[in-house]
Amino acid sequence: MTQLKNDRFLRALSREPVDVTPVWIMRQAGRYLPEYRAVREKAGDFMSLCQNPELACEVTLQPIDRFPLDAAILFSDILTIPDAMGLGLYFAEGEGPRFKTPLRTLSAIEKLAVPDPEQELRYVMDAVRLIRRELNGRVPLIGFSGSPWTLATYMVEGAGSKEFSHAKRMMFDEPGAMHQLLGKLADAVTQYLNAQIAAGAQAVMIFDTWGGLLTPRDYQIFSLHYMKQVVAKLVRENDGRIVPVVLFTKNGGQWLESMAESGCSALGLDWTTDIGDARRRVGDKVALQGNMDPSILYASPDRIRQEVTDVLAAYGAGSGHVFNLGHGIHQTIDPEHVAVLVNSVHELSAVYHK
Amino acid sequence: MTQLKNDRFLRALSREPVDVTPVWIMRQAGRYLPEYRAVREKAGDFMSLCQNPELACEVTLQPIDRFPLDAAILFSDILTIPDAMGLGLYFAEGEGPRFKTPLRTLSAIEKLAVPDPEQELRYVMDAVRLIRRELNGRVPLIGFSGSPWTLATYMVEGAGSKEFSHAKRMMFDEPGAMHQLLGKLADAVTQYLNAQIAAGAQAVMIFDTWGGLLTPRDYQIFSLHYMKQVVAKLVRENDGRIVPVVLFTKNGGQWLESMAESGCSALGLDWTTDIGDARRRVGDKVALQGNMDPSILYASPDRIRQEVTDVLAAYGAGSGHVFNLGHGIHQTIDPEHVAVLVNSVHELSAVYHK
Repeated sequence: MTQLKNDRFLRALSREPVDVTPVWIMRQAGRYLPEYRAVREKAGDFMSLCQNPELACEVTLQPIDRFPLDAAILFSDILTIPDAMGLGLYFAEGEGPRFKTPLRTLSAIEKLAVPDPEQELRYVMDAVRLIRRELNGRVPLIGFSGSPWTLATYMVEGAGSKEFSHAKRMMFDEPGAMHQLLGKLADAVTQYLNAQIAAGAQAVMIFDTWGGLLTPRDYQIFSLHYMKQVVAKLVRENDGRIVPVVLFTKNGGQWLESMAESGCSALGLDWTTDIGDARRRVGDKVALQGNMDPSILYASPDRIRQEVTDVLAAYGAGSGHVFNLGHGIHQTIDPEHVAVLVNSVHELSAVYHK
Repeated sequence: MTQLKNDRFLRALSREPVDVTPVWIMRQAGRYLPEYRAVREKAGDFMSLCQNPELACEVTLQPIDRFPLDAAILFSDILTIPDAMGLGLYFAEGEGPRFKTPLRTLSAIEKLAVPDPEQELRYVMDAVRLIRRELNGRVPLIGFSGSPWTLATYMVEGAGSKEFSHAKRMMFDEPGAMHQLLGKLADAVTQYLNAQIAAGAQAVMIFDTWGGLLTPRDYQIFSLHYMKQVVAKLVRENDGRIVPVVLFTKNGGQWLESMAESGCSALGLDWTTDIGDARRRVGDKVALQGNMDPSILYASPDRIRQEVTDVLAAYGAGSGHVFNLGHGIHQTIDPEHVAVLVNSVHELSAVYHK
């Protein structure tokens, strides 16, 4: 394999010394970039773009070509696994993801088969292989999956939702059915992420978008428990280097201590937690990734630089911080403001790594 | 005024001894009740129901007639103030609240006038007076308002939103405009709640639905700061009794300590915080209201009783707890399950008040 030219991201996740704080941006390949919108139009719908390895590779590399980012992330969707399980993922314009066949019964759950990543999800693995080749060692490639709980909420509900009533009804009224589903999904996520690592992913991230809908007790039982199962079975080496695992529970700021005990390398933070407080709470157990409010990118370059200064200062000196937004970048952000962000992180963080 | 026959709710908020833990339910007058749906149909749209004092009184009393609840809450909407300011509130079917004229400029904000509650919002005060008369001292009546920040987010955005991009853009790019808006709204909320108290409200609650979208720093500056202004200027007495003030920031579980310093009597908790941990964190500064996951009501009566047992045990012995859900009751809940909840709270809590 090609030598990695910029390994700041991997070093920071292992809390090894770096020259400056590495930075990447959730949804960095996305609609705020005109070159992305052009490819998206060519591809047709969103899933056609995800399922075409050449186009997925092209959009993955767009932000890397434009900004001095320290990591690339596979262009894909968190719901590829349920789609491969036969639920029929589609995106209604402006409405977010939907499934043609929501899962509502124990018998439907019993019939689900764990997909073979190199068969039903081969388009993802082909994209990973192609992106690694095209990146040619410029920066590391991050693979990812939705968490078992997050996949389950969408699968049972059939779509995004404010309350996820169907998913929560199953959880409370038929907990056995929900646990069977989560167990299958933990297997599926494990195999999927291990296949991405085998195909070339140099770090992986688990997105637990809906873990924050749970009580502290139920987060442990229905979300974190299954993420731990996944983390424990991941192949943690690639090209002779450690493959770090990042866990991100949106609105999970109250549970960082228990997340840090999961065996992961780092926690992703949304912007509702102060990153300095988070660092004090997790100590030296894990690295931290985050956590600027994405809406700051609407403000002026000066204001963006000020906010970068504040987030870097809150984390403080030493390695273990990967700069990111607290959630995905909004679609209407000016790409010039992203350049300000990325350059500011590199420029203003050097002082913390002397 | 009529003697209050059941004052458990007011006593618990003042942390005075009670025989059993009082209970009420956010959105207890609502779509899950067939008698509500009948009145709603008669009224036409949602705002027509809010603006008709006789019908608002009727639906406020429906859950009190059906269940042994310990408080009634005024039937109204959190967005009556912006509507009275001329923004034109309406409810598109299945889409939540919208404004005909969103606020996007400083000049539009400068033109806003603080409404006179006994003029533009007289329908609310008439409803409060009528409900007090019809309640005839059975239980206390809770008045309420949206928080300044929550009103501002809807007013600038023009509707509910996942990201509130317009509101956040103004906050970061034109903070002066946002602060001017929030200052006016703090005045409006203060006058509105004081008018409700003068009309007969025996406790008031401030709903900060969107405070949880902010960073810890911005929550202090843009939300809590203005709620404190309101709390400081409220008339805290009615019929010779203290009028307790409850603050509820959805997803505010990380900031309970600073909320408890606001001068309020109690904090409303959503279900993402353990109520026992919350009690340890706020000490004896405030009472706590909450916080069962509303989705538990989908489960069996036995499961509901178990959850009530758990929430009561987490709070522990002594007064200072008002049982509630962590958010509004869902529309598809069986009213029989609500009866199980209310009766279980009374029956299972006596042991904590010996």
